[in-house]
Amino acid sequence: MAPHGEGSDASVEAMVAQVEKHPISSILIIIAMQTEALPVVNKFQLIENPHSSFPKGVPWIHYHGAYKDIIINLVWPGKDLTFGVDSVGTISASIVTYASIQALQPDLIINAGTAGGFKEKGAAIGDVFLVSHVAFHDRRIPIPVFDLYGVGLRQTYSTPNLLKALNLKTGKLSTGDSLDMSPHDEASIAANDATVKDMEGAAVAYVAELLKVPAIFVKAVTDIVDGEKPTAEEFLQNLAAVTATLEEVVTQVIDFISGKCLPEL
Amino acid sequence: MAPHGEGSDASVEAMVAQVEKHPISSILIIIAMQTEALPVVNKFQLIENPHSSFPKGVPWIHYHGAYKDIIINLVWPGKDLTFGVDSVGTISASIVTYASIQALQPDLIINAGTAGGFKEKGAAIGDVFLVSHVAFHDRRIPIPVFDLYGVGLRQTYSTPNLLKALNLKTGKLSTGDSLDMSPHDEASIAANDATVKDMEGAAVAYVAELLKVPAIFVKAVTDIVDGEKPTAEEFLQNLAAVTATLEEVVTQVIDFISGKCLPEL
Repeated sequence: MAPHGEGSDASVEAMVAQVEKHPISSILIIIAMQTEALPVVNKFQLIENPHSSFPKGVPWIHYHGAYKDIIINLVWPGKDLTFGVDSVGTISASIVTYASIQALQPDLIINAGTAGGFKEKGAAIGDVFLVSHVAFHDRRIPIPVFDLYGVGLRQTYSTPNLLKALNLKTGKLSTGDSLDMSPHDEASIAANDATVKDMEGAAVAYVAELLKVPAIFVKAVTDIVDGEKPTAEEFLQNLAAVTATLEEVVTQVIDFISGKCLPEL
Repeated sequence: MAPHGEGSDASVEAMVAQVEKHPISSILIIIAMQTEALPVVNKFQLIENPHSSFPKGVPWIHYHGAYKDIIINLVWPGKDLTFGVDSVGTISASIVTYASIQALQPDLIINAGTAGGFKEKGAAIGDVFLVSHVAFHDRRIPIPVFDLYGVGLRQTYSTPNLLKALNLKTGKLSTGDSLDMSPHDEASIAANDATVKDMEGAAVAYVAELLKVPAIFVKAVTDIVDGEKPTAEEFLQNLAAVTATLEEVVTQVIDFISGKCLPEL
């Protein structure tokens, strides 16, 4: 892993060099589901930008507002135009992250959302994790080096002071486009040493690294993957309560960030 | 499936209405691997555009050139900056398709590449398919309607005259981010009634539909998924020969398109 870790560090250093001398002035929050996004929108009284620079016809919603010294942008990919459900998963997250970075040039990205947790790794319902690493668990390419590309292990932007101040749990996040977990996924998630599992994080990290924007990942546990209850049922049952907790932690993160430079996080 | 099919048709009609009155003047070819792209680049003597409007630092390569009355754009996502291999898979394909449409405003997208084929459905090594439908096989979301969103079945832009003139095989394409096929993938591919399997098609189709650009899919079979040989070995063994065939068919497609309006395809 060392050479790849070093690659990421170099990119992060380049990002940090640009903004380390002045406080963070603009953040971009990427949230996949409306139920996850609205508590944050309401808390910061963000308003929808009817003149976003997104292409005509896309369902993506840009909310924005000011809080203390920070411009808060929150982008929710909206409801799928064909099926009418939240545009979850890596493809939607990728193009929305790409387009939002291009349009908004944020100093920092926060990908916030719900996740499945592994109790064997210390996760419980309602826990909020600040993610240390991301990787994919459903991109198996058994050709040398392509296999590593598929897994796409990345260290997230390191924020030791934030982690300490908020007393959050930390762990690795594994991302895939299925809500359930096949035996192949399970083996890959174990290989990724993941404590939490979501459907967007590693994709947001990929695009953020490509465009050299530091990104952090705040994931709240709605369901225990290695527990008794079926994932979909447990997810829907806990979604409302856990998104309230998620909003509280996102608020704490923004309060902590306010007035600070990137290297102080 | 009918309501979703109708949604797609409405989008396609909107696209066609814009350009149906004049011949196709600009196409965008999206190809994931350098080995697949270079034969086409060389055939049409395309040159790399050093001033592409892609963001600074991305590895994406824009080749362009003129052939008869058509501007040919070919975008290859390039080598991954961290791992040095071709940026295959749905995430890279999605953001490259998005950025390329924004930059180049093509009349038509051609996603060309290699694929695995199912002999049980009539595929053989070296066959080139003009795809009728695309869907995903690794996005399992067992919640009502989200399940359909995950599968993402889409009809491709219909080109009956092209299909007949070139005497190509046709069939359904199933897309996933793994080169291999897990039992869960296999069940989904069967449910998708797929004859060929790739790692980008349905993602390109998703973005093309989002931005209302008609897209067709030309996929050449490098390996038989339901055959005896391991996929990775057979894929690498046939890659060079099959990409030569792919170039020939892409050339025939462009020759057929030249001078025609979209509804004539």
